[in-house]
Amino acid sequence: MEFSSALLESAVNEFAKLPGIGKKTALRLVLHLLKEEEEEVQHFSDVMRRMRSEIKFCQRCHNVSDSDLCSICANTSRKQDIICVVESIRDVIALESTQQFNGTYHVVGGVISPLDGIGPSQLNIDTLIHRTQKEETAEVIFALSPTIQGDTTIYYIQKKLPAGIKVTTIARGIAFGGELEYADEMTLGRSLQNRLPVDRYVGNR
Amino acid sequence: MEFSSALLESAVNEFAKLPGIGKKTALRLVLHLLKEEEEEVQHFSDVMRRMRSEIKFCQRCHNVSDSDLCSICANTSRKQDIICVVESIRDVIALESTQQFNGTYHVVGGVISPLDGIGPSQLNIDTLIHRTQKEETAEVIFALSPTIQGDTTIYYIQKKLPAGIKVTTIARGIAFGGELEYADEMTLGRSLQNRLPVDRYVGNR
Repeated sequence: MEFSSALLESAVNEFAKLPGIGKKTALRLVLHLLKEEEEEVQHFSDVMRRMRSEIKFCQRCHNVSDSDLCSICANTSRKQDIICVVESIRDVIALESTQQFNGTYHVVGGVISPLDGIGPSQLNIDTLIHRTQKEETAEVIFALSPTIQGDTTIYYIQKKLPAGIKVTTIARGIAFGGELEYADEMTLGRSLQNRLPVDRYVGNR
Repeated sequence: MEFSSALLESAVNEFAKLPGIGKKTALRLVLHLLKEEEEEVQHFSDVMRRMRSEIKFCQRCHNVSDSDLCSICANTSRKQDIICVVESIRDVIALESTQQFNGTYHVVGGVISPLDGIGPSQLNIDTLIHRTQKEETAEVIFALSPTIQGDTTIYYIQKKLPAGIKVTTIARGIAFGGELEYADEMTLGRSLQNRLPVDRYVGNR
């Protein structure tokens, strides 16, 4: 692309660095900002700068936060002795959107994957173990990726947890609305093995 | 979506204001920025702010520019007496990318469309007429949308241009690589009417 303005070109290049944004989309976004009021763009710019420089990570669960303790860990009406272990902040947002969980989280930051050079020390596993030792913990729920790496991570953490804690994982099976014939054999096989009595099945209809 | 941080939420909302960016994409972009170095995000923020506040529009052709005269109008090796009339800055970038044009541009800012409340006075038409009267102009090439509104705009401007200027429009017809059977009748009919002798046809193979 040929630009007649270096300012325009650098703005397009900055947007094009973002994941999933190509040069054409970047140009469309920049031309949109160019048409906006100057204060609007100033605000956009300020929000991004402040977000990156002022955002904190919860000292207890590593979730994003505006203070040392995130709003979920600071909420006394939530069950603080139930910990849901997730990979990322995005998973916290997804689970919170279901409005089905009233415990706390622990963001480990990924799963153990030796091939990608990710070992237990790169993840927030020590802080989780320490947390379960220090605080009274009734249950640890794993909500990690349903992959070999996810299972490895569950196995690794589970062995290190203090005795007497209930350890569970979110149900894996056929997605609601999914079709049996398109499910892979692994999922279908496991969902058969882990079948539930119908009176325990909670439909969200 | 439920956010545990107001800073994160406002950043996601700012991104989601951009065209074609939904909440989920906005979250992905913000989490990407969150993982970047603080200086990188500072730079991103600064570039957007500077782009909006410092960018200028060329006093002659209304293209974006870093100074009073854009780099195309200031380039003496380009034919300054040939003016290509386009709707937007995006069209200038598209035409410049072809590297087939060595004249100048005039960004009128849209097409006359009474139904959308856009009349000649909302567009940069007066400055174009003034420019052709003041400067020696050999040719005005229209590269506007191939619509009724585009044709109306061509007709309106053409009548106001000083006598003696060659007035042309970019060729309309079947797109290179396009298939005849999928072309609409209007396009196909016109491309038959405006057929070219084969020795004047310049293939870009």
